[in-house]
Amino acid sequence: MKTGPVMPTETTGYVRIFDTTLRDGEQSPGATMTSTEKLDVARALARLGVDVIEAGFPAASPDDLAAVRAIAERVGVKPVEGRPSADPPIVCALARANKSDIDKAWEGVEGGARPRIHIFLATSDLHMTHKLRMSRQEVLGRIEEMVAYAKRVCADIEYSPEDAGRSDPEFLYEALSRAIRAGATTLNIPDTVGYTTPDEFGALIGGIRAHVPGVENVVLSTHCHDDLGMATANTLAGIFAGARQAEVTINGIGERAGNTSLEEVVMALATRAPKFGLRTGIDTTQLVRASRLVSTVTGFAVPPNKAVVGSNAFAHESGIHQDGMLKHQATYEIMRPESVGATQTRLVLGKHSGRAALTARLSEMGYAFDDGAIDRVFARFKALAERRKSVADADIEALVHDDATPHDELFRLEGLQVGCGTQGMATATVRLRAPDGCVHVHASVGTGPVDAVFEAIDALVKAPLELLEYSVRSVTEGIDALGEVTVRVRALAGRDAESAQRQVDTAPVLHGNAADTDIIVASAKAYLKALNRIVALGHTRLVSGVTMAHPPASMPAGVAQESRS
Amino acid sequence: MKTGPVMPTETTGYVRIFDTTLRDGEQSPGATMTSTEKLDVARALARLGVDVIEAGFPAASPDDLAAVRAIAERVGVKPVEGRPSADPPIVCALARANKSDIDKAWEGVEGGARPRIHIFLATSDLHMTHKLRMSRQEVLGRIEEMVAYAKRVCADIEYSPEDAGRSDPEFLYEALSRAIRAGATTLNIPDTVGYTTPDEFGALIGGIRAHVPGVENVVLSTHCHDDLGMATANTLAGIFAGARQAEVTINGIGERAGNTSLEEVVMALATRAPKFGLRTGIDTTQLVRASRLVSTVTGFAVPPNKAVVGSNAFAHESGIHQDGMLKHQATYEIMRPESVGATQTRLVLGKHSGRAALTARLSEMGYAFDDGAIDRVFARFKALAERRKSVADADIEALVHDDATPHDELFRLEGLQVGCGTQGMATATVRLRAPDGCVHVHASVGTGPVDAVFEAIDALVKAPLELLEYSVRSVTEGIDALGEVTVRVRALAGRDAESAQRQVDTAPVLHGNAADTDIIVASAKAYLKALNRIVALGHTRLVSGVTMAHPPASMPAGVAQESRS
Repeated sequence: MKTGPVMPTETTGYVRIFDTTLRDGEQSPGATMTSTEKLDVARALARLGVDVIEAGFPAASPDDLAAVRAIAERVGVKPVEGRPSADPPIVCALARANKSDIDKAWEGVEGGARPRIHIFLATSDLHMTHKLRMSRQEVLGRIEEMVAYAKRVCADIEYSPEDAGRSDPEFLYEALSRAIRAGATTLNIPDTVGYTTPDEFGALIGGIRAHVPGVENVVLSTHCHDDLGMATANTLAGIFAGARQAEVTINGIGERAGNTSLEEVVMALATRAPKFGLRTGIDTTQLVRASRLVSTVTGFAVPPNKAVVGSNAFAHESGIHQDGMLKHQATYEIMRPESVGATQTRLVLGKHSGRAALTARLSEMGYAFDDGAIDRVFARFKALAERRKSVADADIEALVHDDATPHDELFRLEGLQVGCGTQGMATATVRLRAPDGCVHVHASVGTGPVDAVFEAIDALVKAPLELLEYSVRSVTEGIDALGEVTVRVRALAGRDAESAQRQVDTAPVLHGNAADTDIIVASAKAYLKALNRIVALGHTRLVSGVTMAHPPASMPAGVAQESRS
Repeated sequence: MKTGPVMPTETTGYVRIFDTTLRDGEQSPGATMTSTEKLDVARALARLGVDVIEAGFPAASPDDLAAVRAIAERVGVKPVEGRPSADPPIVCALARANKSDIDKAWEGVEGGARPRIHIFLATSDLHMTHKLRMSRQEVLGRIEEMVAYAKRVCADIEYSPEDAGRSDPEFLYEALSRAIRAGATTLNIPDTVGYTTPDEFGALIGGIRAHVPGVENVVLSTHCHDDLGMATANTLAGIFAGARQAEVTINGIGERAGNTSLEEVVMALATRAPKFGLRTGIDTTQLVRASRLVSTVTGFAVPPNKAVVGSNAFAHESGIHQDGMLKHQATYEIMRPESVGATQTRLVLGKHSGRAALTARLSEMGYAFDDGAIDRVFARFKALAERRKSVADADIEALVHDDATPHDELFRLEGLQVGCGTQGMATATVRLRAPDGCVHVHASVGTGPVDAVFEAIDALVKAPLELLEYSVRSVTEGIDALGEVTVRVRALAGRDAESAQRQVDTAPVLHGNAADTDIIVASAKAYLKALNRIVALGHTRLVSGVTMAHPPASMPAGVAQESRS
């Protein structure tokens, strides 16, 4: 049995940062990540200095379990290069309060040097009555039993009373003391529905500290949601009241309005250090890079006015503010852009630069690749450097993630030709390589070039799906910038065993993204990625596979059919 | 002299909503709006039920003054249709503490039924020493003098001690009592740099209530910024401590990380009514529509995880949450989507529907148009209805704003033809009508279709500018949806009198947006709009106007030149 850290609340001025981007963050509709993407994010989190990475919910699916295992074994054994701490992060997995979930969670994390199992069971009357359909006594018994069950194999156990913010305090105290007696080392207090105000959440933590026997020997933790826009303030109020772990996500992604933002809590503690007198292990200069990575991987753009990491967070527009800034920087600025890494690093690599220079830069940025992947990224880097004077870190990130095509073996874009304009006759010819190696061609017209491309792909790959969202953003400035396209689609058919196991009652939303200086080419690639993701994750079935009505394009398509009348 | 309302703090349970989207919100880099757009937003705010509309800063430029006047006269005289209140909103203008600014502010608002002048002067030592270069005594004297000066013409005076959050409390109390003695009826307390925590901001308001003579006869107001992610919690803490006006913006836009979000404060007060015991005059069912309008007009997308108005704010992704929601809605939801108008209304108008039906819908949505504008929107509506089965409110909004082309008299897109694809030979041919009525044609190649289009436009209109941002988002779901393109550009030359007056030390950032089912066509229109805006606002000068090297296209261009070698 491995031993985990047991550090009591408030004996030190250190606040643990528990990042749940890969678990609660991934629950944002359409944020589903591949295992490769999760590993990239986990590596970035480890470099950033987070104390605990919640890597997933292994009981949800075999894919989730595999991703947690990979993170525990590849990021949780020794510190990645650049990590500010000498220890690797704790890798944690979520489990409902039942043996099967706990077994799977342990299977996920046991390969790490510092494994943690995180068990949750709701304690509000609303959840117990309507969702769990359990009595208070049954809930207390289950908590004790399951924490003890997990403790047999894992020293580091976290327990969360779901919906604590709306729980009867006396019952909550009893539930928490049972968890401590059974071996929990961290007690996490979730405001599951984002309902509380800072004074209330601070009082909740204070009440727990005052009334739960043994609480002085465990770490109290906050887990806040942003439904009323108060997640950060609630988290800080909890910390001020004695919590020493904050559960957060990069960019505040998560269910509904999302979780507390890592970057806001960390920078509030840093900026208001005299007030809080607390520190974290985060290297704040990596915040903007981590934010950008999560944005790229999930396809959720960071709004320009996002605190700390938004592109305007340090911009001063009005004349009065600009005048003030020139006279004294502190008039309108409480943080320096450099402190969060908000200054854009531009590679001085150009088209004459070599593979070694790119490899070195990728390593500095926290990527670990095999040679084949570096070759592909290098080829794309050279192509871009031919067209642009300088290549920014953001460009490289877009290339890397564009390369990390999941499920390449399914459908791949081999060629695309588009004509469009004000004549209203947008036409796209698409050439795809199918899983069987054959190449197929189809031409379609559409209401615009993107519609035409997607129609042509739909004609070749008959997967029932619905386009929910299409967006493009330029990766950097300049008219020759890369355009990064994100599509989100809903798979309409194919309720399979896995989705039944996950109790998914609506069809899943999945995304695809791709970058290219030609946004129509990027659109085609992004749509194919979403489609491949749907097919590969088993969320849908191809209705009829690739239609064979078209000639294999090893013979060029003689007559491209028009798919719309 | 007109009389304004003077309502003391905390004699009622009513919190005034003071919206500064058009003033502080417009200070977001690249959010500059035209007068027409400002009027649309003001009308939507009036319908929404806001008590005070801060319409602008008239001293900044003649355009700002004209926009404030138009809003006072057209939205501030009688209640717009659909407004929940029997009174029109107070229309307010910002002024620095000098006679010239106050005169211009009065000129802006005097046409309204309920005018207000809002004077600000900083009270923190940092701002007084470094920015104002005034002594404490000078600042006190100036406050008294300028509030009294404004009071001669306007009964309703608001005073803001800028950077109150970092001011010496004793000095702040003295400054505020001077303002009251001189006639201020609202005291607004800004946390200008977003530095405070809720306990501190609540204590600041509490301290003012306890120590400022005469405070019981005025309204205390909050003005918070979101630099550390705590604007909403700070605002609520201020209200809890006795403030009865909240200064907010739609979607929380504003300088840097932005202002407090109107929608979050309003929904927190509504959702937590038993705690606060307070009400606002806002019709919450209009929140999503107002959010979408401001997003369209400013080109700032609302992030999906934005509290209250984000597209995922009411989405439940995980199986556990979905299961809970099915068993009891309150398990994971504290607000109903209907309560904020988050359910998409789809017009049952199709291609057989008439002009009257569209006009009625536009009126319900808060738009007031002349016949010419309705004709243009109707033509575009019909064209869209031909292509889509149903037309959503969001589509109509995109059409309306696409029609509201500012400065059409400058350059207009007459035709566009694009070819692109994986062959890497993206080519665009652009046909523009210039201000002199002549039509010009140019063909360019680019790294992608958007680059090619922008290169061709640049070749025809030689305005020195730099593309900062390019983004596209689909207006609704479906592959045939309208794509709304936003570009943001920086005008590189032409420091003119106006920008000098505004003390603008960096070149201004301006945006353009346009919607079309063909995103390349929309891109061309959006780029032209930004360019026209730059030219019309005098922020730049055309280097050489339209190049005449191309044949007027009344004669079709015989040989389209290629602009890149």
